[in-house]
Amino acid sequence: MDKDALRKTAHAVADAARRAVLPYFRSAGLTADNKLFDGRFDPVTEGDRATELAMRDVLARMRPDDAIIGEEYGVQAGTSGLTWVLDPIDGTRAFMSGTPTWGVLIAVADESGPIYGIIDQPYIGERFEGGLGHAALSGPQGHRDLRVIGDRPLSESILFTTFPEVGSEAEGAAFADVSRHVRLTRFGIDCYAYSLIAAGQIDLVIEAGLAVYDIQAPIAVIEAAGGIVTDWQGGPAHAGGRVVAAGGREQHAEALEILSRIA
Amino acid sequence: MDKDALRKTAHAVADAARRAVLPYFRSAGLTADNKLFDGRFDPVTEGDRATELAMRDVLARMRPDDAIIGEEYGVQAGTSGLTWVLDPIDGTRAFMSGTPTWGVLIAVADESGPIYGIIDQPYIGERFEGGLGHAALSGPQGHRDLRVIGDRPLSESILFTTFPEVGSEAEGAAFADVSRHVRLTRFGIDCYAYSLIAAGQIDLVIEAGLAVYDIQAPIAVIEAAGGIVTDWQGGPAHAGGRVVAAGGREQHAEALEILSRIA
Repeated sequence: MDKDALRKTAHAVADAARRAVLPYFRSAGLTADNKLFDGRFDPVTEGDRATELAMRDVLARMRPDDAIIGEEYGVQAGTSGLTWVLDPIDGTRAFMSGTPTWGVLIAVADESGPIYGIIDQPYIGERFEGGLGHAALSGPQGHRDLRVIGDRPLSESILFTTFPEVGSEAEGAAFADVSRHVRLTRFGIDCYAYSLIAAGQIDLVIEAGLAVYDIQAPIAVIEAAGGIVTDWQGGPAHAGGRVVAAGGREQHAEALEILSRIA
Repeated sequence: MDKDALRKTAHAVADAARRAVLPYFRSAGLTADNKLFDGRFDPVTEGDRATELAMRDVLARMRPDDAIIGEEYGVQAGTSGLTWVLDPIDGTRAFMSGTPTWGVLIAVADESGPIYGIIDQPYIGERFEGGLGHAALSGPQGHRDLRVIGDRPLSESILFTTFPEVGSEAEGAAFADVSRHVRLTRFGIDCYAYSLIAAGQIDLVIEAGLAVYDIQAPIAVIEAAGGIVTDWQGGPAHAGGRVVAAGGREQHAEALEILSRIA
């Protein structure tokens, strides 16, 4: 496997996504469909579709033998054993509200799970990458390595999730139980919160009901920065579902002790 | 009153704040005091204090006769009839979490309230200004005029607030009642949400327990872009407290009809 070629392709995919998506961000007359997902409001914009097509176009040219899984256009089979996992706009509610906390998610996975990932925020011009020997941020303040915060007790931890209700009633109650033990809980920034674990800014992200394309890039970036991502029982999280991501083993273990009690 | 001189000073204050605050953002070893505010966690960083001092230094040189009210260093009397209202870091929880949704707030007020304001996001390099004949955004995608979304029913509106609990139990219940009537509710982005009303992205921000320096700049920017900011009874909001900001009269009136029921 040519690691440099893979990284180069991933950055080319992210660059194409930036060019495709930015004309839609904060544009007048943005068309938002109402795709109902678990009974909740889940707008999908034209930008979502145009961006995934732009990403797939790069892969068709640079990596024609790899498989693709994308949020908008589903699965395309491959022969190389590698799969690109794409979410053109993670955080469509943030996107349609004009908040710069949505992201473009790109992962490369083999049979064991994600081996490399990018979380890109096109409006800010900020890119978090991890895997294949790299863990780095490039953005408006330049380039720096990513490193998680390390072990801290839950009582000193900063916890993020997207919606206060989190998921089902039982999942929401489990989250609320963890939330009662932390120093600070914040809501609403979608995939950007995973970047902040990798950057050593926060301790925990807990979510439920995730899809495979929501979590593979965050797993690669966080693990490369020294962090941990599992499901609520401590098993692999790369298929999605219930996820707990942590910047240290101590806060991860304490959160898991609470979350693992629910079925 | 020399409007150009006032605007020039406001931008110089915002530029000085950017230079002062950015070295603290996402810095290792950030010292966060735990200043308890209404029993909630309210960290104040060294960055907060250093930034307000840098802002006051510009005003001391350029507008020595104006009064100043700042979050960190209180009131300084003046003789001109104009008051600068400064919040060096609005959204200290966002700041300490590394989220780029905190802001530097700068307003100029006369006896009637704010006449000009800036909401600046130094990390993104994004500046929203309004008043003295201007309503504009400059940022990573260049320069554009600000204009609110206009009249929409509550059922089509996007509503933001910072914390799900909003304020007291009664205030939280009133917010939840409005939230049940809107299309989408989002949490957690502090003063950035007011910018999104001015930019025509969202419809409503509802908050309680605000201080004077939290709301004067947002009032100036939103009103200059064609929006409305009042308290929950429809009166002036520039002293802080309970605030409802809107991008149109229709959603403002519908929200007010619900919020005004509480004492």
